[in-house]
Amino acid sequence: MSRKPTLAVVGATGAVGTVMLQILSQHADIWGEIRLVASPRSAGRKLAVRGEETEVLALSEDVFDGVDVAMFDVPDEVAAQWAPVAAAKGVVVVDNSAAFRLDPDVPLVVPEVNPHAARVRPRGIVANPNCTTLSMIVAIGALHAEFGLRELVVSSYQAVSGAGREGVETLRRQLKLVTGTELGTSPGDVRRAVGDDTGPFPEPVALNVVPWAGSLREDGWSSEEMKVRDESRKILGLPGLRVAATCVRVPVITTHSLTVHARFEDEVTVDRAREILATAPGVVLFDNPAAGEFPTPADVVGTDPTWVGRVRRSLDDPTALELFVCGDNLRKGAALNTAQIAELVAGEFTAR
Amino acid sequence: MSRKPTLAVVGATGAVGTVMLQILSQHADIWGEIRLVASPRSAGRKLAVRGEETEVLALSEDVFDGVDVAMFDVPDEVAAQWAPVAAAKGVVVVDNSAAFRLDPDVPLVVPEVNPHAARVRPRGIVANPNCTTLSMIVAIGALHAEFGLRELVVSSYQAVSGAGREGVETLRRQLKLVTGTELGTSPGDVRRAVGDDTGPFPEPVALNVVPWAGSLREDGWSSEEMKVRDESRKILGLPGLRVAATCVRVPVITTHSLTVHARFEDEVTVDRAREILATAPGVVLFDNPAAGEFPTPADVVGTDPTWVGRVRRSLDDPTALELFVCGDNLRKGAALNTAQIAELVAGEFTAR
Repeated sequence: MSRKPTLAVVGATGAVGTVMLQILSQHADIWGEIRLVASPRSAGRKLAVRGEETEVLALSEDVFDGVDVAMFDVPDEVAAQWAPVAAAKGVVVVDNSAAFRLDPDVPLVVPEVNPHAARVRPRGIVANPNCTTLSMIVAIGALHAEFGLRELVVSSYQAVSGAGREGVETLRRQLKLVTGTELGTSPGDVRRAVGDDTGPFPEPVALNVVPWAGSLREDGWSSEEMKVRDESRKILGLPGLRVAATCVRVPVITTHSLTVHARFEDEVTVDRAREILATAPGVVLFDNPAAGEFPTPADVVGTDPTWVGRVRRSLDDPTALELFVCGDNLRKGAALNTAQIAELVAGEFTAR
Repeated sequence: MSRKPTLAVVGATGAVGTVMLQILSQHADIWGEIRLVASPRSAGRKLAVRGEETEVLALSEDVFDGVDVAMFDVPDEVAAQWAPVAAAKGVVVVDNSAAFRLDPDVPLVVPEVNPHAARVRPRGIVANPNCTTLSMIVAIGALHAEFGLRELVVSSYQAVSGAGREGVETLRRQLKLVTGTELGTSPGDVRRAVGDDTGPFPEPVALNVVPWAGSLREDGWSSEEMKVRDESRKILGLPGLRVAATCVRVPVITTHSLTVHARFEDEVTVDRAREILATAPGVVLFDNPAAGEFPTPADVVGTDPTWVGRVRRSLDDPTALELFVCGDNLRKGAALNTAQIAELVAGEFTAR
């Protein structure tokens, strides 16, 4: 007889953890016990999941006793320490940090693209991709399956909630400082109004765009840009894929957008690309500029799919498509994909 | 003996016209009379230029009597009608509309890139490029001269003042509606707050990004995207240049930003690219991410040059560079470049 597996949510009180609990309350109830876990600082708080107030437990080894699957959304160094502890106790860890994504013994999974990969997990860990890659990869994966992807040139328009609650609060504070004024038209006036209050960002983000996300890597690349390249290659199984990304923060609360120039092995047609995107699971094609239809974060926030619009064939290259893609960075970009992986894994328990 | 030529500023009361008058007051005083011209609605107003209150005249044929050079910043249809009228009276028209940019008998000029082109003007008209192209082309032209440009993939982050005063006022109104609230985290809440008050934009632009600028052209392309392709080709003298642009409006008041993936004939090095950009006229290289140095609109607004940062060589293509470029869309993107062309032309009068 099958039994309902036990789930732990580690990092339940964060921006992504909050969305995880919403999703668990909305999805089919496949779980037995759901245990909420956070840092000792948050232990004892009560959070609602599936309509029940549930006490948050402090992260410890004992908290994983009897747990089948754990979803982690914690800082990289916390995941690096604790995911192996949970895995050693037989827990399947689905981790949303960057700690294990490029580990060859850890699959990096997007259920619409490479669900099979989740079954082979030598370390007992499955990694969830970063939010920027996740905001486009379902659509790209569908096109790749038909046309054979050769190259991606992507530019991001990343929401502040990608930097957590602190990112959102920073933009809200800055907006109050610059709204109702003439700021934004003279050199340095936004900077003077905002002062040093840039929160997790290197520059003011209100009335501004900031071409930086993450930490500095080799040759001037940011860690976020390297993640888009490395993770896209791993998810698609294309280790030689050409990827050039520039990641830019914009004053949007939630939902990442990307422009994508995708070059394929074969010649493409817009009609066939639209057919693929219109029927691909997890994708919404919203592309009729004559009727004012293209995705924007204001429409996409709070929804599950990857929205695709502005589908065009490059005028000078019949093998390339141009797209504008939006995805909720807290849902598909983080909590939703993590939950989808956990549900894939749960199927193994209920099938036993 | 040389004489100081007479200048007319047509469209003196608009967002760009206002910046034109500022620039004329700041630059070396090479002009004799400066005549201010606008629609009959604005005639009789007084505006300051070179420290003098000057009455605005209504646009008419007579207003061009004795004028040597005229800078036009008016809607396309007004330019199409009136630039030939002025030219027929011997006036050299420097026009910032789209009406003549692709006319083979009208040069399209960026003084740092193709100044020679301004001397050959069969129709008596010189065209000023659109603001998005101008925000990057000085930097691209300098790199092209060394490496030979083959392809551009660009994504824009365009400021609302590119849509004139109405664009700025629309963003300011919308910011008041969304600031100090929890808007931006649930589906449709920004849209509900803003209602139909989207001004010149098809969607709310506060807490949002909008992948549309201009009007619909063939195969899903926007007019703004076609301008970037057509005008870059003409300015650089590369009719076969591959260009793929996606133009996106962002909640920034003034200064357009672009990500640029530029592929060249020859292999490139970041060191040589940086040398070129550090010494190119009209370009500021601001590129030291370790010290938090990269251009953002908040720093660039109100300045003349094209600012370039985030210079990287593509990891998978030694012939391609990635750049992040910012330029004030009202200055270099419009008024400044128009004034620079007018000053080039004025040199012909003073040299007589």
